[in-house]
Amino acid sequence: MSDISYQALNPPDRVLLGPGPSNIHPRVQRAMLAPIVGHMDPYCFTIMDDTMNLLRFLFRTKNELTFPISGTGSAGMETGFCNFLEPGDVAVIGVNGFFTERMVENALRCGAEVIKVEAEWGRIIEPEAIENALKAQKKVKLLALVHAETSTGVLQPLTEASRLAKQYEALFLIDAVTSLGGHELAVDDWGIDIVYSCSQKCIGAPPGLSPFTASQAALAAMQARTCKIPSWYLDLSLLSTYWSGSSRVYHHTVPISFFYALHEALAMVVEEGLETRWQRHLRHGSALQAGLEAMGLTLHAQEDYRLSVLTTVRIPSGVDDLRVRQGLLSDFGIEIGGGLGPLKGQVWRIGLMGHSSSNENVLLLLSALEQLLLAQSYPVQAGVGVTAATEALKK
Amino acid sequence: MSDISYQALNPPDRVLLGPGPSNIHPRVQRAMLAPIVGHMDPYCFTIMDDTMNLLRFLFRTKNELTFPISGTGSAGMETGFCNFLEPGDVAVIGVNGFFTERMVENALRCGAEVIKVEAEWGRIIEPEAIENALKAQKKVKLLALVHAETSTGVLQPLTEASRLAKQYEALFLIDAVTSLGGHELAVDDWGIDIVYSCSQKCIGAPPGLSPFTASQAALAAMQARTCKIPSWYLDLSLLSTYWSGSSRVYHHTVPISFFYALHEALAMVVEEGLETRWQRHLRHGSALQAGLEAMGLTLHAQEDYRLSVLTTVRIPSGVDDLRVRQGLLSDFGIEIGGGLGPLKGQVWRIGLMGHSSSNENVLLLLSALEQLLLAQSYPVQAGVGVTAATEALKK
Repeated sequence: MSDISYQALNPPDRVLLGPGPSNIHPRVQRAMLAPIVGHMDPYCFTIMDDTMNLLRFLFRTKNELTFPISGTGSAGMETGFCNFLEPGDVAVIGVNGFFTERMVENALRCGAEVIKVEAEWGRIIEPEAIENALKAQKKVKLLALVHAETSTGVLQPLTEASRLAKQYEALFLIDAVTSLGGHELAVDDWGIDIVYSCSQKCIGAPPGLSPFTASQAALAAMQARTCKIPSWYLDLSLLSTYWSGSSRVYHHTVPISFFYALHEALAMVVEEGLETRWQRHLRHGSALQAGLEAMGLTLHAQEDYRLSVLTTVRIPSGVDDLRVRQGLLSDFGIEIGGGLGPLKGQVWRIGLMGHSSSNENVLLLLSALEQLLLAQSYPVQAGVGVTAATEALKK
Repeated sequence: MSDISYQALNPPDRVLLGPGPSNIHPRVQRAMLAPIVGHMDPYCFTIMDDTMNLLRFLFRTKNELTFPISGTGSAGMETGFCNFLEPGDVAVIGVNGFFTERMVENALRCGAEVIKVEAEWGRIIEPEAIENALKAQKKVKLLALVHAETSTGVLQPLTEASRLAKQYEALFLIDAVTSLGGHELAVDDWGIDIVYSCSQKCIGAPPGLSPFTASQAALAAMQARTCKIPSWYLDLSLLSTYWSGSSRVYHHTVPISFFYALHEALAMVVEEGLETRWQRHLRHGSALQAGLEAMGLTLHAQEDYRLSVLTTVRIPSGVDDLRVRQGLLSDFGIEIGGGLGPLKGQVWRIGLMGHSSSNENVLLLLSALEQLLLAQSYPVQAGVGVTAATEALKK
């Protein structure tokens, strides 16, 4: 037995300012210490009912099918595609970042034909381009967009796209992994049929669950399928019989400790209020961006379409990407994200999500980054970032 | 906002003696309070490497591909089928319980042709029946059995089946959801190619992860596929590039708090020792079974093939199933399981798994059950169950 190599659990205390997970509020973390109950325990159903109500509030929907998938945001994405697309269906997908590419991959694995509507990584998908794609097809089953692209920092407008989806009778699917709880989203008012998200970003729970909602139109499309849903674990028709109040047919043993944490995090969202929460994320995101620009850095995402919860900033020439990120981690305990795909080595990705979205973290990040840039002879005047951010925070 | 219906988190303290989850040791639960790190943090990779080593110890394998899937045991089952079966493949599946039926459903969704080898719910699948099925086919891709059937309480012998799988050149897949950590299992010595399990039964961590391992032969079969793996989330070729020491290609945001809990639970398995742990489960299971029989109750599973971690006992005629289970829950805080499928209303399922496998729980369950049976005029002599169990515990 002496040859088993492992060490005692002792993780470092990080300030999580990357693309997620974000730091967990102690109250949410403590919820995981609550005693677990079985997946058929009456108390489990109480927590599940609560969670459905809380998620309907957060998604701003009346959709009956509104619950978390027992997997991460990527499982939510797969759920969103594999339940609604079948071989031969046509899906129009906006492609302008890493996670939009992942949507394409998911749709292809469902046997769908994918029409890509492409834009540069850092720019939105224009409604005109979407309409051109929709009208060129005989029948489009599904139009899919990423609301907040974690790889580029772009916030995709949705209302015009939603109108087009209705006009061309396509289901409208949205990836809200990075936006839910941090940016305004109104599933019913905006006419979105399928939405998935994650627990560990702007909601502020640990990674492991994917909040999901689907409209009546989406469910009707699912019921009209001619072939079985390829996934048993993510089959929404089976999951619904377990989550639904009347039947409660056992499906799988739910990750109850994460249900507790999500329940507590959602209660905190209600207590803070949605508008207040979006404003908090906006205020800190704007302050960070003001600070970065004051330091002479360039924001990557298209102006007027920048996320407040995740900022992409270009790495100045002559500055070593990895040295800065490793310095942040080792000298200050701060995690930020590097670029993905074509943006690898080109940008940093700084998240201010959930409990991590605080004025302390804005100032800490700007101060730490300044020190590391100065160490690499990048010409920045001491204190300008923090000063600009502090000014912005007063607004 | 006042119309959102939810209550403060306040779960009851249950004694979990059902088919899982089992109670979590405080040390394991406390691990979830450790600060989370990102999925690309060097510390995350340390924990992942540790976890692979610890799982190899537990599975008794040298398989490189040995890690937990980020979902429950059912996600592990789907991983086991969807990565290895493709349309047109033939799978021979032993069918003698609820979870064997679920395996059939998974194989069918992969487009495979399924040959069922059936036995009564409560009896093992006989090697002769397996051989007959194997030799009737031109080519069998996969032979699948459930090691410990949670619905029936039966322990399936594996060595002869393994020999047959080799002889007929089929991959050998085992569902070890209920056995891993509680019953002997030796993946390499027993020639098993694909095994999945769960975190919340005999390992003693919360539900949400599925330990998984696959042999070189299984990986070669996966690489020889002609069509893409339908699931992106459960695609082992992608997951391997994230878990593998050299590449670490980001796949999904791992449920780090559960990784911590699993790491701690596995460390406790190593500290206890595998043999000692199996013996503990055997001692408590045998004592429970002795007590139940002393009370005049009949065990359901075939003699000599009874699980020690989960006991099925027939509900005596005249006794109300639900009244007993509700009494256990409300009067004693004890969860046990009811029958599934054809055994609904016929049996109770009593688990003694992981931290729940203790002599206190044996005595508590027998005492509580006695009270509830007496209340329903079932003729049982006061104390016989506890006395018989206490005798058995001395052995």
